Amino acid sequence: MKDIQNLPDERNVYLNEVGIREFRYPVSIKSKDGSWFSTPAVMSLRVDLPGTQKGTHMSRFVEVLQDHAKLDLHNVRAIVEAIRERLNAENSYFTMEFDYFIEKQSPVTGHSSLLDVHVGVDAKIVDGDFSFCTSVNTPVMTLCPCSKEISDYSAHNQRASIIITLETNQFIWIEDIAKIAEEASSSPVYSLLKRPDEKYVTEYAYDHPKFVEDVCRDVKLRLDALPNVRHFAVEVMSHESIHNHQAYAKVVV
Amino acid sequence: MKDIQNLPDERNVYLNEVGIREFRYPVSIKSKDGSWFSTPAVMSLRVDLPGTQKGTHMSRFVEVLQDHAKLDLHNVRAIVEAIRERLNAENSYFTMEFDYFIEKQSPVTGHSSLLDVHVGVDAKIVDGDFSFCTSVNTPVMTLCPCSKEISDYSAHNQRASIIITLETNQFIWIEDIAKIAEEASSSPVYSLLKRPDEKYVTEYAYDHPKFVEDVCRDVKLRLDALPNVRHFAVEVMSHESIHNHQAYAKVVV
Amino acid sequence: MKDIQNLPDERNVYLNEVGIREFRYPVSIKSKDGSWFSTPAVMSLRVDLPGTQKGTHMSRFVEVLQDHAKLDLHNVRAIVEAIRERLNAENSYFTMEFDYFIEKQSPVTGHSSLLDVHVGVDAKIVDGDFSFCTSVNTPVMTLCPCSKEISDYSAHNQRASIIITLETNQFIWIEDIAKIAEEASSSPVYSLLKRPDEKYVTEYAYDHPKFVEDVCRDVKLRLDALPNVRHFAVEVMSHESIHNHQAYAKVVV
Amino acid sequence: MKDIQNLPDERNVYLNEVGIREFRYPVSIKSKDGSWFSTPAVMSLRVDLPGTQKGTHMSRFVEVLQDHAKLDLHNVRAIVEAIRERLNAENSYFTMEFDYFIEKQSPVTGHSSLLDVHVGVDAKIVDGDFSFCTSVNTPVMTLCPCSKEISDYSAHNQRASIIITLETNQFIWIEDIAKIAEEASSSPVYSLLKRPDEKYVTEYAYDHPKFVEDVCRDVKLRLDALPNVRHFAVEVMSHESIHNHQAYAKVVV
Repeated sequence: MKDIQNLPDERNVYLNEVGIREFRYPVSIKSKDGSWFSTPAVMSLRVDLPGTQKGTHMSRFVEVLQDHAKLDLHNVRAIVEAIRERLNAENSYFTMEFDYFIEKQSPVTGHSSLLDVHVGVDAKIVDGDFSFCTSVNTPVMTLCPCSKEISDYSAHNQRASIIITLETNQFIWIEDIAKIAEEASSSPVYSLLKRPDEKYVTEYAYDHPKFVEDVCRDVKLRLDALPNVRHFAVEVMSHESIHNHQAYAKVVV
Repeated sequence: MKDIQNLPDERNVYLNEVGIREFRYPVSIKSKDGSWFSTPAVMSLRVDLPGTQKGTHMSRFVEVLQDHAKLDLHNVRAIVEAIRERLNAENSYFTMEFDYFIEKQSPVTGHSSLLDVHVGVDAKIVDGDFSFCTSVNTPVMTLCPCSKEISDYSAHNQRASIIITLETNQFIWIEDIAKIAEEASSSPVYSLLKRPDEKYVTEYAYDHPKFVEDVCRDVKLRLDALPNVRHFAVEVMSHESIHNHQAYAKVVV
Repeated sequence: MKDIQNLPDERNVYLNEVGIREFRYPVSIKSKDGSWFSTPAVMSLRVDLPGTQKGTHMSRFVEVLQDHAKLDLHNVRAIVEAIRERLNAENSYFTMEFDYFIEKQSPVTGHSSLLDVHVGVDAKIVDGDFSFCTSVNTPVMTLCPCSKEISDYSAHNQRASIIITLETNQFIWIEDIAKIAEEASSSPVYSLLKRPDEKYVTEYAYDHPKFVEDVCRDVKLRLDALPNVRHFAVEVMSHESIHNHQAYAKVVV
Repeated sequence: MKDIQNLPDERNVYLNEVGIREFRYPVSIKSKDGSWFSTPAVMSLRVDLPGTQKGTHMSRFVEVLQDHAKLDLHNVRAIVEAIRERLNAENSYFTMEFDYFIEKQSPVTGHSSLLDVHVGVDAKIVDGDFSFCTSVNTPVMTLCPCSKEISDYSAHNQRASIIITLETNQFIWIEDIAKIAEEASSSPVYSLLKRPDEKYVTEYAYDHPKFVEDVCRDVKLRLDALPNVRHFAVEVMSHESIHNHQAYAKVVV
């Protein structure tokens, strides 16, 4: 049976990336406490393609995944290398996204519940160099310092998202990245709060008013203090309770 | 050229709806002030299909639309009837969704800006009866009465969505439905607020604490007072600032 | 600490549903082969609220979930009853959605891979009656009979979605619902196909041309033949390769 | 009333971007034929913020927009400059997305209909340099060369998306970018096709089989031939009819 993909290509146009996208596949992620968390992830696997080859072999990407479904994020490099080898490519790319859950205690009554964060992984080998970014989108609360200052009482507050994207020389747990986000916010959010907890969170947020600019800066200073961080970006999106749009701040290092 | 769709079908299975979906098309909507607002809408047009006919003629739905792009919502009936006639059907269905904008003044400084609401139209002729529902999703603010009561100061508040779906004997403007939603909330939201406005909105919301249950009930009572309403549903979704999920309330009449 | 929710409400407006929505929580689903599949689900839990009570107790919904994270779909009734009891309500509602994976062999070479389907569960107790619907959205392929008939060669084909929603007296596995969808399509789809498989699927689809109307009817006839089905709906959406919209068919029984 | 945003900030952290996001606003876009097309757009406006200033003035972004609602894409520079001036910033950023419609004739019967494409605009002034990218996402059809070659008859085909992102020294119409995408595909798609058109499109696609790699390369060669193009990227996503995932190719110049 003819292998059309392997035919020579006369256009001689190098393609930076070819592969599969929006591929859903269940993976197991190792948690900070040592247990394994199982979840479907949405993935993309790609390689570069020489100008002289007509097409890549799409089914091989799926085969690589089937060999690596148990994913220790300490070892994403293995899957990126396997893609490169299996596809005979120079460069290889692997991205995935999934929901992840972190157990937290409510601040006063100590009730335990799970907070969902959204995680992205972006790993690649380009020109022989491996790099690996983790991004964690953590929901928090912001309370507006301007509204607090100018109002005789109360202040508008809202849910906000903090996206921290990190490239490091050393592994950092999702749990630790989310904690940095929470500590820089007006208050963490929780799935389960009893009334004494709700009182605490309400007052705590009022005592820690923050613009998106403040949150962004405070996350940045915490990340600056980490060892082994090569690059990072921080984005804060506040779903303003007094508007129907978002306030936004971003810093890139 | 053979017309496969017109062939007889031996399975004799009546189909409730056949047609097109996720069809994007620009329409002009008449505003309360008499002007026309132009926007793409996402549409679906369907008819029922007798058990004895193999298929419907999909291209005719598009042709009906092309004859009705200037849509006075007073006259959605014309398009539903045109679908039924053009497709030789008993029952016909027309739904569309679009973003719509309402001009508002900020509460203190009077700055004008546009609030975006999301509108759905659901019209049909079934067994000879025409019916027509309009639904308007209005963004507002809710402030938690429990949080206010139990906290020494402040209260958590957040953006919320109120979806009012109405079937009436007489036309109601989108603008008037949105106003009912806003009046039942802790506070309206605005695209443009200067500092004196922000102070006003912050304090006003604190003075009007509402659970989703309260908002739902207050919208219901306002709708009860309208003449010519046959059925309605009210849904309130509050994007809780202290959680990563929504609080929800619904009433159906 | 005052319990505002428990206060009497003078408006006396009964609310059909109050509770939480867009709540993400990891669950374990029992598969047909006896193993357990772990995945985050997006959930909503609600109860009705008497007209005389100001508000529901939102945190209790989360507590009910925490007691029922290991979900055998044979026993969704337990969670709906627990919601009703914990919230002291007449009616209770539980819905959730999640991605699910079914292992399949490619048709010629027998390579194994996972197909992702999207599952919805909708259970409730209303006026003392428990009811439970499962809906499975299965991706398949449709090939247009008209295009095949009128063209000298080839036919347009595309990915389509079949949503089967079933209310039954007896449990039906997700795997069995997806199989009914696949058998009524022009061809199943697969995550992993080698070239002999791709040849087979291409020719098989051409040999089984189907309008959305045909798929809808063929699913309906298969469901009619099942014992213990009380109600069902079938929706077919074909992502037409020659258009930028969908062809649609629906039957309700 | 105190201006908290204008306070000095001791952390001295420069922020790359601060502003508003997910802001919906109606705009008028000038079409190639000289007419104006009205549509809501989803926008983001940002500036950079010196390390010494606590916050930006969010309401001013909305005021700039209100002065520029009639948008000739020839003159996006005016809005980016207005943002920079109004906010007293060094760098300013403006992005927006909207659906746009292009009138086309069906290939045989000449029936006219509208094709919807999705457009992105990304403009900025950074360090005094203005740059402006337009991206157009055009729906097309791809037919698999491998499936055609190995099968005795037919070939799998599907809807695909081609995203062309262009930075040019000279204005290029949306209509012309979409045409480049369509010419590089297996076939354009249409909103309205009568049977002779459907036969033509079916056979035309079979006569022009293309992998995502082929489409990507053919778009690239067409863009290479344009004068005044500074940078571009081409992404092709094929919604494979035999899989539940996408095939993908990308080239960056």
